[in-house]
Amino acid sequence: MTTLITNIGELTTNVGSDGDLCGTVKDAAVLIEDGRIAWVGAAADAPSADDVVDAGGGAMIPGFVDSHSHLVFGGDRAAEFEARMAGQKYAAGGIRSTVAATRAASDDELRARLRGFLDEMLAQGTTTVEIKSGYGLSVVDEERLVRLAAEVTPEVTFLGAHVVPAEYADRPDEYIDLVTGPMLDACAPHSRWIDVFCETGAFTVPQSRRVLEAGIARGLAPRVHASQLGPGEGVQLAVELGAASIDHGTYLTDDDIAALAASDTVLTLLPGVEFSTRQPYPDARRLIDAGVTVALACDTNPGSSFTSSMPFCIAIAVRDMGMTPAEAVWAATAGGARALRRDDVGVIAPGARADLALLDAPTRIHLAYRPGVPLVRAVWKDGVAVV
Amino acid sequence: MTTLITNIGELTTNVGSDGDLCGTVKDAAVLIEDGRIAWVGAAADAPSADDVVDAGGGAMIPGFVDSHSHLVFGGDRAAEFEARMAGQKYAAGGIRSTVAATRAASDDELRARLRGFLDEMLAQGTTTVEIKSGYGLSVVDEERLVRLAAEVTPEVTFLGAHVVPAEYADRPDEYIDLVTGPMLDACAPHSRWIDVFCETGAFTVPQSRRVLEAGIARGLAPRVHASQLGPGEGVQLAVELGAASIDHGTYLTDDDIAALAASDTVLTLLPGVEFSTRQPYPDARRLIDAGVTVALACDTNPGSSFTSSMPFCIAIAVRDMGMTPAEAVWAATAGGARALRRDDVGVIAPGARADLALLDAPTRIHLAYRPGVPLVRAVWKDGVAVV
Ligand SMILES: [Zn+2]
Ligand SMILES: [Zn+2]
Repeated sequence: MTTLITNIGELTTNVGSDGDLCGTVKDAAVLIEDGRIAWVGAAADAPSADDVVDAGGGAMIPGFVDSHSHLVFGGDRAAEFEARMAGQKYAAGGIRSTVAATRAASDDELRARLRGFLDEMLAQGTTTVEIKSGYGLSVVDEERLVRLAAEVTPEVTFLGAHVVPAEYADRPDEYIDLVTGPMLDACAPHSRWIDVFCETGAFTVPQSRRVLEAGIARGLAPRVHASQLGPGEGVQLAVELGAASIDHGTYLTDDDIAALAASDTVLTLLPGVEFSTRQPYPDARRLIDAGVTVALACDTNPGSSFTSSMPFCIAIAVRDMGMTPAEAVWAATAGGARALRRDDVGVIAPGARADLALLDAPTRIHLAYRPGVPLVRAVWKDGVAVV
Repeated sequence: MTTLITNIGELTTNVGSDGDLCGTVKDAAVLIEDGRIAWVGAAADAPSADDVVDAGGGAMIPGFVDSHSHLVFGGDRAAEFEARMAGQKYAAGGIRSTVAATRAASDDELRARLRGFLDEMLAQGTTTVEIKSGYGLSVVDEERLVRLAAEVTPEVTFLGAHVVPAEYADRPDEYIDLVTGPMLDACAPHSRWIDVFCETGAFTVPQSRRVLEAGIARGLAPRVHASQLGPGEGVQLAVELGAASIDHGTYLTDDDIAALAASDTVLTLLPGVEFSTRQPYPDARRLIDAGVTVALACDTNPGSSFTSSMPFCIAIAVRDMGMTPAEAVWAATAGGARALRRDDVGVIAPGARADLALLDAPTRIHLAYRPGVPLVRAVWKDGVAVV
């Protein structure tokens, strides 16, 4: 069974060449076979297929790869958001209210919520999602969260070290003992990644090192939340340990940028966080010009960024972070794939998964040019039309 | 035939009381009869009906009233947008490229495009749209645009004085003769409103006065584009002539604000414009605190604001203009209705049109809290479920 999608006005393959980061093909077609891309080229040269879909001249991009989310939680924090917009400052301690609501929710309640978010993301063109734990903060609850996440994605991240739970408030190092001991034992079998929130108010650099090294010793690969609320040593730690990504990076020093540029560590920018906390936007232009590989992700969570819209993040990255539309689309697809060390997603090339988003627009530029407008008209995941 | 929508978690009626601008009813129900609201109240007290719809605890608001758009045009200006994001300044002269594409398009091409935008807007919860001409700039083309707009909305605005067309570049006063003479004769029968772009680079205050007074003499009601690119006397002119709205207002003096606060003229803020042109956002907080009535609209157009998303405008108004979520939702519904001098839309009250948007969220706050996410789950227009 083969499917040919033809009459694609502008195809973003992300197989870059000649200064075109996005590897653009005009008037293109894509052949899908067994859930994978079998052929890519000019529509005029397309092979025959069992089934033909007319893209109507619209732009097609790889499905978004959202490499940073926190989708397993109970409740929301709308009132906290409203208060913050009226002038109250964002404090990471608000996480604890979500921890209470998450612990109180049943598996089925969390599962229904999670599936709702995934449907919402698919409808917005996101076909790969990384999901972190971090609202359980007990052995039994963190195990629940990574287990539920593993039902829907292979990109599961154990983030027991999200914040120190209230019951360990005065003894954070004992909490680290728990995270690196019994909690890691319970969560590692369901997880691919180990993560830590290395930030003033969350975990120190030595604590973060303990968490990451314990995870690495259990076969998990590291990624790090750092430099969200101020500069710190988290970036250097992440690079030293070969993290796939450091996420946030709102406050970076020149040394951080140099270290990132010289490393394989991706910097994942999360524009929804700056938007929803009124933090200053990081200067992506400076990062890209310095040679840093940049990804964009939503960081969907009820506290600091409740968007699940990669198009929204692209629009903000272009308007407020100095990225070109092409760079932003690349960062939200190929960049996310790099941040997850994946080569089967984020590109439209023979052998890659047939994860595709068709836009109701002639160019990918419209994702920034038409902010907020739901432009994703159709989505394929592993070759199956899901939207 | 009556329809009861029940199990509405939070209903925004906009029938304010006791400091609650939005007239919020929790656990509410709404009865629809013959396209109008027949009853509003607590779900527990709801009357019986022929048909019952369960809102699933979601928040319901009046359909958005988008009081400012330019939906009849050909082409787009994606390349200009991309160049502007790379540092080029916005210039109103870019309008002329859209004029050329619009003149070249057939009625059916313009109509198909227009209907596409309206569908897109309905899906985002917008049930009332004002549409301006202004990309024709000749008698025959302006007449085409208002005639096509009148096929889909009663809120048609003749904006022949959008910009001086290339062929009149050296003799703008002759163009004003055309606008206030044969062009007005051709367009007035299809229009409710007269508008002018009173701005340096567009039309002077005396020219604007001529346009507005000629329209008023033909029975059209005035509204004005002013103070988008810098301060000017357009606001004072609008207030003097009793305009329903002045739109943009990015640059206002204290005298402008005092004049607006003492008048019946609404100030319509257009956050998509500041977003897409990287202009500074106006301080809505200062305006509201001074007693100005504020509306929010998209200004959908291919040059300075190609969003059609009222939720996006709400999110920006809250994040960047100092409005509360309640104020922003009010401005996008009741505020838009005031800007169009309508009392049958923008409220959910007996006798009003049954124009309703149901959100996939428990509160209206989520429109700002979840930026970019398509939260509109269902829409009724004149009592008919259209989304
Ligand atoms: Zn995070
Ligand atoms: Zn306008």
